Amino acid sequence: MSSYIHNPHDIETKSFEIIQSMLKPTDVTGLRLQIIKRVIHTTADFEFQDLLCFKEGVENKLLEAVKAGCTLISDTNMIKSGINKKLAEKLGIKICCFVSDEDVAQCAKKQNMTRSMAAVNKAAQLPGKKIFVVGNAPTALYRMIELQETGGLEVEAIVGVPVGFVGAAESKETLWKTDIPSIMTRGRKGGSTIAVAIINAVMKEAVKQIGS
Amino acid sequence: MSSYIHNPHDIETKSFEIIQSMLKPTDVTGLRLQIIKRVIHTTADFEFQDLLCFKEGVENKLLEAVKAGCTLISDTNMIKSGINKKLAEKLGIKICCFVSDEDVAQCAKKQNMTRSMAAVNKAAQLPGKKIFVVGNAPTALYRMIELQETGGLEVEAIVGVPVGFVGAAESKETLWKTDIPSIMTRGRKGGSTIAVAIINAVMKEAVKQIGS
Repeated sequence: MSSYIHNPHDIETKSFEIIQSMLKPTDVTGLRLQIIKRVIHTTADFEFQDLLCFKEGVENKLLEAVKAGCTLISDTNMIKSGINKKLAEKLGIKICCFVSDEDVAQCAKKQNMTRSMAAVNKAAQLPGKKIFVVGNAPTALYRMIELQETGGLEVEAIVGVPVGFVGAAESKETLWKTDIPSIMTRGRKGGSTIAVAIINAVMKEAVKQIGS
Repeated sequence: MSSYIHNPHDIETKSFEIIQSMLKPTDVTGLRLQIIKRVIHTTADFEFQDLLCFKEGVENKLLEAVKAGCTLISDTNMIKSGINKKLAEKLGIKICCFVSDEDVAQCAKKQNMTRSMAAVNKAAQLPGKKIFVVGNAPTALYRMIELQETGGLEVEAIVGVPVGFVGAAESKETLWKTDIPSIMTRGRKGGSTIAVAIINAVMKEAVKQIGS
């Protein structure tokens, strides 16, 4: 049993080689391809090659924001937990998730909205450049769009990949109709691990580019 | 836009109705069916109806252990973060993940093994009933099997669902050949969200059964 590969770096390199060899022929290159491959690495689900949708120029928006040490705001603690802390530290990135905060729970109750929505309200008050990373709550995504349309939210980009059977697909299509720089997964699929894979791929490329 | 469903409980109920209606005909019932449905709820991937494999009797082993307030040991912090804390608290369950611990990093370096393996070594020392929950690291799963075979690990059950292209499928098939009560996903698919869905389904059923 001692013959299995022990080195995590070797495992990742080999994995990406296998993924590359199994992709459908594609013209996609650069960071967009890296994101697609990292999502497949995280899920072993090649359907994501078709499901991932990128607004034109979103990769540069994301890269600029993370290089400027923006704040990443996630809708789940799983995403916060999964984001690569070493890369975030190198880029001076702060990671926030407000969904479990006591004041957010109270606001949600008072205003008859989900905690995910109240957490977006709280995050919208943060100063500086912000990227929202949504893997779970369609209501969070809807709330961002509402706030952005009414001038209550400044956001560099949204990674909008909620998973689910009620509202998830619709919330992503609504995001797609806005002019917010964004990445989404078409249909029901998505989730916290997909969101993490996307943002980690962006940070990895940013760290490579700044050469640290 | 205010027409979208705001109530998380309604969303979950409706989601499970949709999943039930879309499942392939099956004789599976009870907790096993609940686990399958919760994994699909988490991924929107119906392939898991076929990929999830259950050792005979593993559901009862898991239920007994969580009702007894066992310790859950995960291989990733994402899993630790995603496990339902309210359910865990009701059952008196402790959740541990040692992979980022400084002493584990040092042991791994000294013994030329992955941090995931060193984390299993540390977890094996814990007293009391233990369930291991693996969503990422094949090396963690291999290490558990090695320790169990040499008498160095007492474990009630293993949720073994690492995802990946190098070693993941093989590690799960190796687990399957042991007599350890376990749940696994056949092939490459798996991951932290799948692991979380399985253990949360078990805890939900346990809380229902003890009536708290």
